[in-house]
Amino acid sequence: MLDTIFKHRSIRKYKSDPVSDEMLRTLLQAGTRASTTGNMQVYSIVVTKDDKIREKLWECHFKQDMVMQAPVHMTFCADFNRFNKWCEQRKAVPGYDNYLSFFTAAIDALLVSQNVCLAAEEKGLGICYLGTATYNAARIIDILNLPKGVVPVAAIALGYPDEDPGLTDRLPLEGVVHFEQYSDYGPEDIDRIYAEKEASDLTRELLEVNQKETLAQIFTDNRYKKQDNIHFSKEFLKVIEKQGFMNNE
Amino acid sequence: MLDTIFKHRSIRKYKSDPVSDEMLRTLLQAGTRASTTGNMQVYSIVVTKDDKIREKLWECHFKQDMVMQAPVHMTFCADFNRFNKWCEQRKAVPGYDNYLSFFTAAIDALLVSQNVCLAAEEKGLGICYLGTATYNAARIIDILNLPKGVVPVAAIALGYPDEDPGLTDRLPLEGVVHFEQYSDYGPEDIDRIYAEKEASDLTRELLEVNQKETLAQIFTDNRYKKQDNIHFSKEFLKVIEKQGFMNNE
Repeated sequence: MLDTIFKHRSIRKYKSDPVSDEMLRTLLQAGTRASTTGNMQVYSIVVTKDDKIREKLWECHFKQDMVMQAPVHMTFCADFNRFNKWCEQRKAVPGYDNYLSFFTAAIDALLVSQNVCLAAEEKGLGICYLGTATYNAARIIDILNLPKGVVPVAAIALGYPDEDPGLTDRLPLEGVVHFEQYSDYGPEDIDRIYAEKEASDLTRELLEVNQKETLAQIFTDNRYKKQDNIHFSKEFLKVIEKQGFMNNE
Repeated sequence: MLDTIFKHRSIRKYKSDPVSDEMLRTLLQAGTRASTTGNMQVYSIVVTKDDKIREKLWECHFKQDMVMQAPVHMTFCADFNRFNKWCEQRKAVPGYDNYLSFFTAAIDALLVSQNVCLAAEEKGLGICYLGTATYNAARIIDILNLPKGVVPVAAIALGYPDEDPGLTDRLPLEGVVHFEQYSDYGPEDIDRIYAEKEASDLTRELLEVNQKETLAQIFTDNRYKKQDNIHFSKEFLKVIEKQGFMNNE
């Protein structure tokens, strides 16, 4: 397992080979073994193989090729719908239409997703997380018929890899770990932590292609822009409210 | 690895044996191999061993014994502080003071946490997630000196197990998985999905101890009450705002 964790890289090119139902079952079972708040299992996993539905999801995920290429698409959802229905059928009054409940369910769903991904990689499959699940959550809700109480929080492409990319760089461990308490970063810390990343061939290439002076500008100006973030923040908060998780009074 | 995933159970009793720095380093490295949005690594891990600080954290986590007993406490945080500082030092204007950025960073932190937990279990250690990290986030921020841009989203107790509990029950797979699209639950589905859980010895015991008619009532009336959820929803939203993630206009 450690080996699987240390060999993880996102796969963006997939073979057309299908993933067997038996294999899917194993991965999904692995998902359900993740820790879950109070053993409530307040999540759902939607497994989509159908080409037409995947084509619609592909549009939500900014038409990233891998979504159509990978034979399986999974959407991990915060889900209090099932739990609420159970409460109502059992003379119990659910109080889970608030933000804390949404976040609790989101944590549940995300731990499940990471279990599924690691199980998949252990079995020779490849995965790629689609950060875009939250960006276009409203459209995903329509496409997958998610009822009130259900919010997509992560999605993955899944299939057999048709590429063998190297590991992605990471910041040095001291850059992301703090001992005892948080020690805030001074200017020299930042320089040191980002030095290797900034000196890499990949960065040099990106600066040339994007015609930017610094790598940070590629993030702020091209990849994760303030105006987009604000737009999708509003949309996602609207979704959380519409799905019934903002009754905080 | 699959074996590790399928054998997971939360550990609530720990030996006093310390966890070596080398071991911690391996677990933390495993954490950093998790998928991360745009390879931004917008998270931090705070590793706390000091008894006095852990005692304060123990209070935040509703004085659950295991927090004091386990020699290591880890707090996983959504963290745009480091990334923002880097941007500012590199002539880039960060636009990450909004809700989408918070949620993106929270996803990053949660995937890291699950990698650390599975790596720990693979190495013979035990873990227990503390769902309470979001409940008392404001106090955790004070105790750990978390600056603006940093929000705790999960915490774990970590150490060598001093108990060997069995696996916890889970709903049948069909109860949490949907194929192609979401198929909403009818009353009979709910009955079927919860049947085994409701018929278990554990449930019978809980009903007797709590003097309740249904298991669902134990959740709604005792464990996860509406008024508590509302209180902690407000508090957590205030924290998200105070830490600088609610500038959505």
